[in-house]
Amino acid sequence: MHKNFKGIEKTVYGRGSFNQLGEILAPKRVENEQYFVFIVDQYFKGKDLEVRVPAEGKDLVYFIDVDVHEPTTEQIDTLRDEILAKQGLPSGVVGIGGGSVMDIAKALSLMLTNEGSSTLYQGLNLVKVPGVYHVGVPTISGTGAEVSMTAVLTGPVKKLGLKCEWTVFNQVVLDPELIASVPTDWWFYTGMDTYIHCVESENGRFNNAYSHAFAEQAMKLCRDIYLGENAGQNAENDDKLMVASLMGGLSLTYSEVGVCHALSYGLSKILGTRHCYANCLIMNHLEDYYPEGVAEFKEMVKRFNVTLPQGLAKDWDDETITKMAHVSYNLPHMWLHAIGENWQETITIDLLKDLFRRL
Amino acid sequence: MHKNFKGIEKTVYGRGSFNQLGEILAPKRVENEQYFVFIVDQYFKGKDLEVRVPAEGKDLVYFIDVDVHEPTTEQIDTLRDEILAKQGLPSGVVGIGGGSVMDIAKALSLMLTNEGSSTLYQGLNLVKVPGVYHVGVPTISGTGAEVSMTAVLTGPVKKLGLKCEWTVFNQVVLDPELIASVPTDWWFYTGMDTYIHCVESENGRFNNAYSHAFAEQAMKLCRDIYLGENAGQNAENDDKLMVASLMGGLSLTYSEVGVCHALSYGLSKILGTRHCYANCLIMNHLEDYYPEGVAEFKEMVKRFNVTLPQGLAKDWDDETITKMAHVSYNLPHMWLHAIGENWQETITIDLLKDLFRRL
Repeated sequence: MHKNFKGIEKTVYGRGSFNQLGEILAPKRVENEQYFVFIVDQYFKGKDLEVRVPAEGKDLVYFIDVDVHEPTTEQIDTLRDEILAKQGLPSGVVGIGGGSVMDIAKALSLMLTNEGSSTLYQGLNLVKVPGVYHVGVPTISGTGAEVSMTAVLTGPVKKLGLKCEWTVFNQVVLDPELIASVPTDWWFYTGMDTYIHCVESENGRFNNAYSHAFAEQAMKLCRDIYLGENAGQNAENDDKLMVASLMGGLSLTYSEVGVCHALSYGLSKILGTRHCYANCLIMNHLEDYYPEGVAEFKEMVKRFNVTLPQGLAKDWDDETITKMAHVSYNLPHMWLHAIGENWQETITIDLLKDLFRRL
Repeated sequence: MHKNFKGIEKTVYGRGSFNQLGEILAPKRVENEQYFVFIVDQYFKGKDLEVRVPAEGKDLVYFIDVDVHEPTTEQIDTLRDEILAKQGLPSGVVGIGGGSVMDIAKALSLMLTNEGSSTLYQGLNLVKVPGVYHVGVPTISGTGAEVSMTAVLTGPVKKLGLKCEWTVFNQVVLDPELIASVPTDWWFYTGMDTYIHCVESENGRFNNAYSHAFAEQAMKLCRDIYLGENAGQNAENDDKLMVASLMGGLSLTYSEVGVCHALSYGLSKILGTRHCYANCLIMNHLEDYYPEGVAEFKEMVKRFNVTLPQGLAKDWDDETITKMAHVSYNLPHMWLHAIGENWQETITIDLLKDLFRRL
């Protein structure tokens, strides 16, 4: 049984394509209560992009600070209740920001039409009816959230996505100009999310000719961007990084993430560490699992003088580490991919605790 | 203004995925007059695949011989009228075959709901309303018809596609097992369509980071398949060729075909030469335009001992060649891409006639 996956419905790619957003939304404004909800990264408050958001009439614009914590089930539920109480069902939701903002937009779209708490829908195909029309506009590239069929939420019990075909964006606007001003550290961490997606996609049981072709090309783009002659933040590389992020995400459609993401979820769930940064902290210590990928990752870290702190685990007590290990252990689809059917023979809570202690 | 393109809605990829077709169609069977139309390449009549077509109840199965001629507007109009008269509007149309069969399925889907002759809709965005649900199942890889937003038809005046977002398939089934039995000559010609798409996509004004990333990887796959250590028809390469065809098609979403396709359309329109074969006949003589691509193409021709006849033009009279040249000349989007804004300064009817005389 092969996965029958839903693709992004419409994609516009190119410098300045953000200017087309208003025109793209226009024909959808007849739907429902005839207004749009814009979820915009707080980072853009007061910046040029704020006034370029094509909000009009009774549209609602929320600036959300995603630095406080990753998207939570409670946050989505509260936002949904507030929007419905205020103006009823919107025509659609537009997320302008990074992976967190896009995940909020995707989750909100679904929760506007599905009753009860979003915690009920964390998992595969638990969502009951399609959400409202939703649009993703990445302003930082690498997470693949623009193409994925999941909206990752941290709930009281799980860090797990609302994963179904209706999660996928109806429209994506890929404008490389929007990522030009990303702070260099986050440009690095988030780009590495794509690189790590590819390493994990390639090294596991689910990899096939489809996922391989996308991962191989996304890795090539990452090498150009982070190790090539013209490495660094520049227009040419911004163009490439947007495509790499998309291809890395498409690679995962048929494959899976692995050891790094499983551990990263544990770290983020328990300590709230931001996803892409958590990945980098962990990737640094995964030579045993991905020798070539980790070696190249370290070259990239070195090339951009990125400081990845060491010795973090010495401040964590055993209870904290045990909790992290349990979150990571409970991601069987990742372990099945990375290790194989008998993954439980090698991956134990103790082994995971040891891995966390390396940080 | 950047292209806002429609992607395939759902894709299933993998060996044996054809077995999932029945299950995929099932929920759509409630639509319209509750039956499906299957357009199947005549090649499979009497073969194993014939009995595997998941037709049931009052479904209509048409085996079409696409070797007689490329899909025509008249053929689509007649088929549409016959189907509607017989059983009314179907739930959907499934095309099982190569580029011609998939183009028939796409065009038929649109013409079942759009009135009048399909000649009215040859061009960009001329189609008025969405067609019925339509599914593409390639049994030979390379044309990119599975992903393109066009259904190329030869009409009394033009060889030109019905090109709009509704042309794109709602569902594609990519089962590499289906292409295992393709006769070697057509495996070559059709695969070369992908290779030529990439050469043309890369060498022109519209190429960007998106189209480049897809073209580069599709070309790499073509090199593995047609020049690599393990070159030839085998399971590994069938897996790759299906992905290459898809990626080559996706590259064209943002770019365009060029000189080879423009000439190929002229040859096919006037003499009925099959598209992929026509491309190969022409590519052989385009060193002036694509020196590297043509050199590599010739290596592939040599590697598989493909005979591409020479001296064809000596049997064509001036009137025939003039007609071909006019068809080719009237594809300004291809010339604009390949040559640039002032293409009319270099590309003339006389020059095109000279190019055809090289064949």
